[in-house]
Amino acid sequence: MAEFVVTPWEVKGEIDYEKLIDKFGTSPIDEALLKRIEKHTGELHALLRRKIFYSHRSLNWIVSEYEKGNRFVLYTGRGPSGHTHLGHLMPWIFTRWLQEKFDVRLIFQLTDDEKFLFNPDFSLEDTKKFSYENALDIIALGFDPEKTEIFLNTEYIKIQYRIALNVAKKITLSTAKAVFGFKNETNIGMIFFTSMQSAPCFLESERENRAVPVLIPCAIDQDPHFRITRDVAPSLGYPKPALIHCKFFPSLAGGDKMSASKPETSIYTVDNPKEARKKIMQAFTGGQESVELQRKVGGNPGVCSIYQYLYYFFEENDEKIKERYSACTSGAILCGECKKYLADRVEKFLIEHQKKREKAKELLEEFIVRD
Amino acid sequence: MAEFVVTPWEVKGEIDYEKLIDKFGTSPIDEALLKRIEKHTGELHALLRRKIFYSHRSLNWIVSEYEKGNRFVLYTGRGPSGHTHLGHLMPWIFTRWLQEKFDVRLIFQLTDDEKFLFNPDFSLEDTKKFSYENALDIIALGFDPEKTEIFLNTEYIKIQYRIALNVAKKITLSTAKAVFGFKNETNIGMIFFTSMQSAPCFLESERENRAVPVLIPCAIDQDPHFRITRDVAPSLGYPKPALIHCKFFPSLAGGDKMSASKPETSIYTVDNPKEARKKIMQAFTGGQESVELQRKVGGNPGVCSIYQYLYYFFEENDEKIKERYSACTSGAILCGECKKYLADRVEKFLIEHQKKREKAKELLEEFIVRD
Repeated sequence: MAEFVVTPWEVKGEIDYEKLIDKFGTSPIDEALLKRIEKHTGELHALLRRKIFYSHRSLNWIVSEYEKGNRFVLYTGRGPSGHTHLGHLMPWIFTRWLQEKFDVRLIFQLTDDEKFLFNPDFSLEDTKKFSYENALDIIALGFDPEKTEIFLNTEYIKIQYRIALNVAKKITLSTAKAVFGFKNETNIGMIFFTSMQSAPCFLESERENRAVPVLIPCAIDQDPHFRITRDVAPSLGYPKPALIHCKFFPSLAGGDKMSASKPETSIYTVDNPKEARKKIMQAFTGGQESVELQRKVGGNPGVCSIYQYLYYFFEENDEKIKERYSACTSGAILCGECKKYLADRVEKFLIEHQKKREKAKELLEEFIVRD
Repeated sequence: MAEFVVTPWEVKGEIDYEKLIDKFGTSPIDEALLKRIEKHTGELHALLRRKIFYSHRSLNWIVSEYEKGNRFVLYTGRGPSGHTHLGHLMPWIFTRWLQEKFDVRLIFQLTDDEKFLFNPDFSLEDTKKFSYENALDIIALGFDPEKTEIFLNTEYIKIQYRIALNVAKKITLSTAKAVFGFKNETNIGMIFFTSMQSAPCFLESERENRAVPVLIPCAIDQDPHFRITRDVAPSLGYPKPALIHCKFFPSLAGGDKMSASKPETSIYTVDNPKEARKKIMQAFTGGQESVELQRKVGGNPGVCSIYQYLYYFFEENDEKIKERYSACTSGAILCGECKKYLADRVEKFLIEHQKKREKAKELLEEFIVRD
């Protein structure tokens, strides 16, 4: 099997998600844990039922604390390197569900510093602009303005810098090199940056001057940052943040993780819905070379980007997704039908989302916090 | 000759200041440059006349710009690792003189972040406390409140963090390792820190949105930071900061650079004047083993901490210092007399300074800037 690489800044190869659990030392979300969650949420989100959120650290502890009345705070983030695509929305939608079901606060960090440091072409003005664009998408998802704060690192730096200094003092260059693969050419901002991504894990504990549990929903590639955070937390007197990890959203070209650098293989929230439809109609599927062959041997939904889109995002109904799977493998339906089905749903979603995104412009100042 | 080491965090061995100019690649302050300065200041400060401020970078350019009507900004700083001693005051007194003679603004950075990161025993609360103590000494020296701003890095971080990110992006890990000797055990905050020390070099240019010349009076051990700053300045569109470097203030134990870690060999601004007198009476001198021998062969002012104190700080009168030198080498005076002479002056200085330091408490808020 081909080797795969997963770091916060690089995902390549065909990812073996089970192996990643071993490699990173996280735990799979098992049925017992799902039951514990369901007891409080009343239902399981499709992303949990379908094991797209599939791995965790200390999630049992978060539920135990919650059961004792010690409510956690959610923390997630976004590296503002361009427009938001559907892959970004996925963990945010799940985060919003967690906020609603557990009635908890959310800290949303926009790492404009990170994306500036890691991309030679970006100025801080660029990553600030992207941050505010991305914030509109976050707000459009319906987070509770009373319980949600969104900030850019360069705009909410005072308390974060203090926490980051405390974290940075505990992280040696060796550790940073081993975890992130930094080289001699790496700039010194990149080396420091992980301390900034750690900061929100301890923000609420600092503010409230007590140990506040934190749960981080994120894609699994972000785990290395928080593995370090968890290592240093006890010596700083903070609880270790818990994590719930998701797999990567599929690319329309097939393969894993939608990439912002290939716009034709991703659907952006600001895409013209008609353009998005076109991207879908041209997407990679698991279909056969001819209609005849497809009717005879059926398609392969396992490699089909259209099926993956439905499975991850656009077909929440478990019965319907099963039926589609069978209809594909039996040759009962053709790729064009699935494409059209998905395109209709994506188009509808984008039209709705873009309306909410417009309204979000008026709500922005309710959500953004600054020093 | 013994090897000597001079970095921003370590000074050891017997320092060859001329060699340091070659090693660091700075320029000596020659007579022509002194004349250019004198043309504007009307007189030369003893620290210039005596070549204690002896090295520079781009100081001719600073004078040229000044002559064109493009006034520079002074920038200096302090790593708040404890109480202020007389060695710290020396460059500040010179900075104050520059402020007065050239009628220019001063930016004073207190690097509470640095001292926290570099000292395992300090908390951020400790270095904050030291910062405010040190600020009283700065203010007591008589800087113009209208033209001086003092800040702690953790309290004036917003604009500095943005500038530091721009600087950090241009500095590779290799460079930081080569310049500062960082190792794998170095924490990642220390590696980033030089960017923060660079930030004030570009602060005024950022604020005024034009190229503002900056002159940094500092001890020569701080040069490595600014060598990097100067390397990255052009690519960031800022002018290179100019520097004027001084030698290290002598220790009462003999040798170079008063060390805060050996309190008995330094005089602190908060020392009880009587205690300070005691330290001086016990200091290392260039005297002979017996009065008889001293009368016969004379003392050695070159290695005498008492003579150095007078030369660096407490005897501004050139005639008098020359006379004392001759009287010592000829055996005409004994160490006890010099000690008493210095002790009287130090005692008087401390009594005066401590009064001004008390008054500085009321002026603090006029000088301190925060985000």
